[in-house]
Amino acid sequence: MNVVVIGGGAAGLKAASRIRRKDAEAKITVVEAGKYVSLGRCGLPYYIGGLVHEIDNLRETTYGAIRDENYFKRLKNIDILTLTKAIEIDRKKRTVRVVNNGKEDELNYDYLVIATGSRPVKPPVEGIDAEGVTTLTSAEDAEKIIEMWEEGAEKAVVIGAGLIGLESAEALKNLDMEVTVIEMMDRVAPTMLDRDIAILVEKHLEEKGVKVLTNTRVEKIVEGDGKVKGVVANGKEISADLVVVATGIRPNVELAERAGLKIGETGAIWVNEYMQTSDERIYAGGDCVETNHLVTGRKIIAPFGDVANKQGRVIGENITGGRAVFPGVINTAVFKIFDFTVAATGVNEAAAKDAGIEYMSVIAPGPDRAHYYPGTAYIRLKLLVEKGTWKVVGAQAAGMGEVAKRIDILSTAVQAGMTIDQLSNLDLAYAPPYAPALDPVITAANVAMNKRDGMFEGITVFELKEMLDREDGIFILDVRSEDEFERNHISSEKVANIPLLELRERLSEIPRDKEIVIVTVCALGLRSYEAARILKGAGFEKVKVLEGGMAFWFE
Amino acid sequence: MNVVVIGGGAAGLKAASRIRRKDAEAKITVVEAGKYVSLGRCGLPYYIGGLVHEIDNLRETTYGAIRDENYFKRLKNIDILTLTKAIEIDRKKRTVRVVNNGKEDELNYDYLVIATGSRPVKPPVEGIDAEGVTTLTSAEDAEKIIEMWEEGAEKAVVIGAGLIGLESAEALKNLDMEVTVIEMMDRVAPTMLDRDIAILVEKHLEEKGVKVLTNTRVEKIVEGDGKVKGVVANGKEISADLVVVATGIRPNVELAERAGLKIGETGAIWVNEYMQTSDERIYAGGDCVETNHLVTGRKIIAPFGDVANKQGRVIGENITGGRAVFPGVINTAVFKIFDFTVAATGVNEAAAKDAGIEYMSVIAPGPDRAHYYPGTAYIRLKLLVEKGTWKVVGAQAAGMGEVAKRIDILSTAVQAGMTIDQLSNLDLAYAPPYAPALDPVITAANVAMNKRDGMFEGITVFELKEMLDREDGIFILDVRSEDEFERNHISSEKVANIPLLELRERLSEIPRDKEIVIVTVCALGLRSYEAARILKGAGFEKVKVLEGGMAFWFE
Repeated sequence: MNVVVIGGGAAGLKAASRIRRKDAEAKITVVEAGKYVSLGRCGLPYYIGGLVHEIDNLRETTYGAIRDENYFKRLKNIDILTLTKAIEIDRKKRTVRVVNNGKEDELNYDYLVIATGSRPVKPPVEGIDAEGVTTLTSAEDAEKIIEMWEEGAEKAVVIGAGLIGLESAEALKNLDMEVTVIEMMDRVAPTMLDRDIAILVEKHLEEKGVKVLTNTRVEKIVEGDGKVKGVVANGKEISADLVVVATGIRPNVELAERAGLKIGETGAIWVNEYMQTSDERIYAGGDCVETNHLVTGRKIIAPFGDVANKQGRVIGENITGGRAVFPGVINTAVFKIFDFTVAATGVNEAAAKDAGIEYMSVIAPGPDRAHYYPGTAYIRLKLLVEKGTWKVVGAQAAGMGEVAKRIDILSTAVQAGMTIDQLSNLDLAYAPPYAPALDPVITAANVAMNKRDGMFEGITVFELKEMLDREDGIFILDVRSEDEFERNHISSEKVANIPLLELRERLSEIPRDKEIVIVTVCALGLRSYEAARILKGAGFEKVKVLEGGMAFWFE
Repeated sequence: MNVVVIGGGAAGLKAASRIRRKDAEAKITVVEAGKYVSLGRCGLPYYIGGLVHEIDNLRETTYGAIRDENYFKRLKNIDILTLTKAIEIDRKKRTVRVVNNGKEDELNYDYLVIATGSRPVKPPVEGIDAEGVTTLTSAEDAEKIIEMWEEGAEKAVVIGAGLIGLESAEALKNLDMEVTVIEMMDRVAPTMLDRDIAILVEKHLEEKGVKVLTNTRVEKIVEGDGKVKGVVANGKEISADLVVVATGIRPNVELAERAGLKIGETGAIWVNEYMQTSDERIYAGGDCVETNHLVTGRKIIAPFGDVANKQGRVIGENITGGRAVFPGVINTAVFKIFDFTVAATGVNEAAAKDAGIEYMSVIAPGPDRAHYYPGTAYIRLKLLVEKGTWKVVGAQAAGMGEVAKRIDILSTAVQAGMTIDQLSNLDLAYAPPYAPALDPVITAANVAMNKRDGMFEGITVFELKEMLDREDGIFILDVRSEDEFERNHISSEKVANIPLLELRERLSEIPRDKEIVIVTVCALGLRSYEAARILKGAGFEKVKVLEGGMAFWFE
């Protein structure tokens, strides 16, 4: 059997390796347009930031062998042709025309794997090709950024506050540069996060000295002496001697398209659940294909390294006679930004609305381990629950603690179709260094059940701000301690402070006017829930809890 | 409504709090035999070890309020009677007779909650009540241990290598004591771990200077001058001036039994899925009840703080007219031991055999984050998979990295009934600081599928040892680098070292004798799998992979 793989990234090499593991005899050739194969591109920001010391670390095995052409040949008997571009597929003859350094060649295949990946999209603005403007998707990009820094670049602008943009911002800040992030949408990580969780991330970025400009559109890149000088956005110029463009990717489908393979509704290559294209001899995987979103049922592009690896395995399995399936994804993602971990899975509010899912949302913060254990940090966790079925359909979280763990538990639960009632009794691993007795995941499920069952009514910071702006009849009851209240509170004359423990004794201080909505407020949302129950028990009717507590408040 | 709760631990107070949240009017009285309510007993080892500074930290809320009688009265209008023992339940009159400081009283109830917890079991050996022999289940125990240490105790023996025993051993070692742990069974944490994973833990304990004696039975405790002097075990005396007994617990069921409530097959109080005893007016939860093991279908006692909290919530919900269910547990557990995290969920091999589950096991180590990211640690993960359905029924893991996260993912998967094929495509949160592109959970599922599909045959360290002892025809091929091989290897003249990358070129060095079993060995089990595939591809027939690699080897 003769297999040609186009693309030496995660999907292509995983497919090639799996084929070799199952078939000792197959001839396997991988064609790669770039200089390297198997580069862990997700590690590039950490290479720039200095956490990863050598670019070669990003293409090593766990035991320190460099995954280059020699490695693949000697270990796996796989031929790798680097700096070689596939330029045409002839499906009738089953050949691929390739070109290396101007020399053309033709490779025969019994099976072909297309893993051509994606390329960064640059916004079509003046000056975008100026010297000093770069993307961050290759080793060369990373080397160029480091070179500019070494040559004295001090001010960086990152265009796009998606995952790569934010990771780049941290890396550049870690090099002591002055960093501004510009985002067109109203929040950072807009495809991943809702605005409330995004606010936490934006606050943390500002705390760490990174300037974030949301709702801001780049109009022009200013050049001087043949080099970038600044970025004009919303009419103002921000000076910059280094610009990183991270405004998304586009799948490389041209080769497949020219060969007449079916392109899906997303613009990526269509494949079935076996990762087979519309030609049964041709498989495809990685950033260049579309896949299913298992919650919405929609087709999406999921350009993540883990997805490419899983798809590559399925391809290799099926080319060698297997019948493996890749069902799809639920857009689980995580990123580190300074001391914060930010993660999400399933749908966010925008995606739920778009897919017509009727949902209820709750925000439930909690400590990531027993609160008395050293190093405990608070996680802000948001759940989206489908009304009626009460299944969890999405989750987002941010904080300094073990956020990724909770999102992985929830991701598994979403994929299993678990309800909040099932989550509430989930048997998770409890010991003080790892979780509180009720894990934040379980607390969130309990809060969601309380909300469903009418035990409390929540109000978001956005709704509360609007009520204050409209000057509605409102009384804000902050039930934190006096010290906490002194440190920061909602600046409005409608705020009163009664520490929770004193509330039953001081109920007379709260207005009994039926027109007034009482909003209870605390640090995390736990005391204010307790306060709301006390008020309800005492006959107050319109009582709402500020969901998530003061961490979400912004003036 | 009048509710009496017997027991001021997690289950009782959670039930009481939930009742108040749902019913502003109910009269709620909690009767507690001890001095404190709501003490986080799981934190006691950390208080002894000095990580938690004040015993009161263990009964604080997340916002620093002490959960004492005053707290419960002012905040929740719950009456707590400490140092008060319930001595009789009259189910006809619906009363509980209590005694405080010699004074008797009678409390009426509409609903009664029994949350009497458990007490430690001490082995019936001579000297067990000597001065200096203690358990570790109360604040008083903890204070006594600290006092003995302050008075100069230097040598500690811990009897029982379960979770509390091991956590105590670490705490005492952290106080610079000489610590020996004695365990009757052939391994540490015997109800939780199989012997292979237990070996990793034992090696780590020895590395940290804790002596572990397995297969060892305590025969006598030696006294002198009215104080403990030593422990005689397997005929030898180990000197000790402090002995911690951690040999399990027994549920406190006497009160319930005398009241004629049904006691289950485990000796704990029987309850239905609503946490109701055989008397519909009486609920029970926490250490004193039995529950369902959701994998085996058996009744078990699950004396964990998280379980008690969940059960308490269900009790409170149902007493106030709800219909909440507590379905059971799968014995998920985790403990920290020095730099290691050790965790398990579902059944281990002994429990699977006992329940008649036909299973396949695999060990699959992996890095807990991208291997190039600073601080990466290796996790040894073991899966038990039911043959035929190929559902995961159990998992165990140990290592320095993010072990708890993987067990929580697997716990969720076990509870959802996921197969290894589903696990293989699980959409988990990937970024270099949090996981490798294929999470260890996914790699383990892939390894399990490979084993199921005949892609490799595994051999355990125990089987390999036996083969070497029997002098079977065997050739051990260590495919690590020469440096790694030099550092440590299986001491047998049947071992040869051919680094993996050279294997295809040096196949002639491997015996072609069909009677000889070739066992491939490496650090983690990944290279040896690759090597086994190469050998199989080259026509070798009897090839086995040492599962888990050299970390599991012991001489």
